[in-house]
Amino acid sequence: MYDITSALADNARAVNETLDGLLPMRDDPEARLIEAMRYASLTAGKRIRPFLVSSSADLFGVTSEFALRVAAAIEMVHCYSLVHDDLPAMDDDALRRGLPTCHMKFDEATAILAGDALLTKAFEVVADPATHPDPRVRSDLVLELACAAGAEGMVGGQMLDLVAEHNSLRVAEVTRLQRMKTGALIAVACDAGAVLGKAADSARQSLRAYAHDLGLAFQIVDDLLDVEGTSEEVGKATGKDAEAGKATFVSLLGAERAREQSLMLADQAVQHLEIFSEKADPLRALARFVVDRKH
Amino acid sequence: MYDITSALADNARAVNETLDGLLPMRDDPEARLIEAMRYASLTAGKRIRPFLVSSSADLFGVTSEFALRVAAAIEMVHCYSLVHDDLPAMDDDALRRGLPTCHMKFDEATAILAGDALLTKAFEVVADPATHPDPRVRSDLVLELACAAGAEGMVGGQMLDLVAEHNSLRVAEVTRLQRMKTGALIAVACDAGAVLGKAADSARQSLRAYAHDLGLAFQIVDDLLDVEGTSEEVGKATGKDAEAGKATFVSLLGAERAREQSLMLADQAVQHLEIFSEKADPLRALARFVVDRKH
Repeated sequence: MYDITSALADNARAVNETLDGLLPMRDDPEARLIEAMRYASLTAGKRIRPFLVSSSADLFGVTSEFALRVAAAIEMVHCYSLVHDDLPAMDDDALRRGLPTCHMKFDEATAILAGDALLTKAFEVVADPATHPDPRVRSDLVLELACAAGAEGMVGGQMLDLVAEHNSLRVAEVTRLQRMKTGALIAVACDAGAVLGKAADSARQSLRAYAHDLGLAFQIVDDLLDVEGTSEEVGKATGKDAEAGKATFVSLLGAERAREQSLMLADQAVQHLEIFSEKADPLRALARFVVDRKH
Repeated sequence: MYDITSALADNARAVNETLDGLLPMRDDPEARLIEAMRYASLTAGKRIRPFLVSSSADLFGVTSEFALRVAAAIEMVHCYSLVHDDLPAMDDDALRRGLPTCHMKFDEATAILAGDALLTKAFEVVADPATHPDPRVRSDLVLELACAAGAEGMVGGQMLDLVAEHNSLRVAEVTRLQRMKTGALIAVACDAGAVLGKAADSARQSLRAYAHDLGLAFQIVDDLLDVEGTSEEVGKATGKDAEAGKATFVSLLGAERAREQSLMLADQAVQHLEIFSEKADPLRALARFVVDRKH
């Protein structure tokens, strides 16, 4: 029986080692910037995106060092987005994973710069020849990561989220928002392994379909945890969506239907992996984990 | 006689057209993000970095469309850095090029996201096959741009600048700060043309030496304008460095020696171009322009 919990923990450890190596401490006057970058990225997060990169890379026999570098880069993009989203001008959050957010621990200016530097570093890591010997692979990964992270993807989704606070959205609109805000980066994490492994189009399409359903299931569970979890369990302030009057899957569908929807999406995600052998078991187990998690 | 003023104007027009094409208006709910990105980048700036890209690319017979895309990408990075530097938590500036800064025109959250999206878009543009058919060229450019823009370059320089407000720096430290904060991106702009043109190492070294001196000359003149210019002439608040008690080349050397230093650096920059024919006249003229400018 595949043990997803310990597999996630092993992967998280390897990702932290990679991040630690990519963000060495310095004793320059500007060392505060590196400290903040490390604080924001060397965390006890679940590291779901890195796990997706490594698990999909394993399907195609990719050297694990290559996968870990890309995994670390995608996690840097995820972490930078959290640092900026937590800022007072944005979601104004003081707590993240049970610890003070970056601007609370340091200050706003340092948090803005640490986010900027993490995003920039991610592209540096992907473009570095150490990530893959074929420059076309590196260039393709940069392009895909940039598209997923930018105005048409993650940042666009965050803008939509801010605009949406003043509007009432329908399910289709919330789905679009979440597809951009969290789905795009999850999709690029799944696809990155296939790009590194120069996988066939059919395999990439299956992985993309998996990522699509997984991303939405993940977000619905996030919304459920915001309603049902306590701050101690979830590691950040809860009940914020309802307080802000934000349209979420839970506010639109109700908790019960939202829960059913997330389980259905997880099943569907697993079905897309049919073309893969038992090598895809980690991805299958992750889909279950995502809907069963309590934080 | 080479007319640098009209050459800069022609180049600025071409860069604006390229940026306009890369940032098309949308009618999505999140269109506000694109509006802010356009507001921050489609400006009446001098476009010195894009001019450097195109002028150095011309030395090696690079297709002008390729150079313009890279020029636009580097300008996006420059513009994002201005948007974030102007934020209340950073330099807290209300005026930029005679117009409200991005967060004044829109709001803080939108300005943070527009900066993030511009930075991300820059890497998307460079990695796109439309920028150069050779993926190694694209990947090298991404790597170089990321190194120049990140914690070891521009963002690190901005952090140093914030830290420095509480310390008194010496000339060597101000030089290092400015080399990171503004010099690194100017250097990558000069080098980008050489990378696009697959230039020999000797040519790249000459261009790098030129960029090095030009960048410092540029910054010294900026410091002089902050002291000597009026807000109307310069298009942004002046006298801010002295008010903040910031160590600058002018506060450390005095205006007269700083002026001499800038002229000496411009001469030196031109001397590094000796190996090039009259094809490098635009770069030579730019060195003069940078020290003669009044804003």
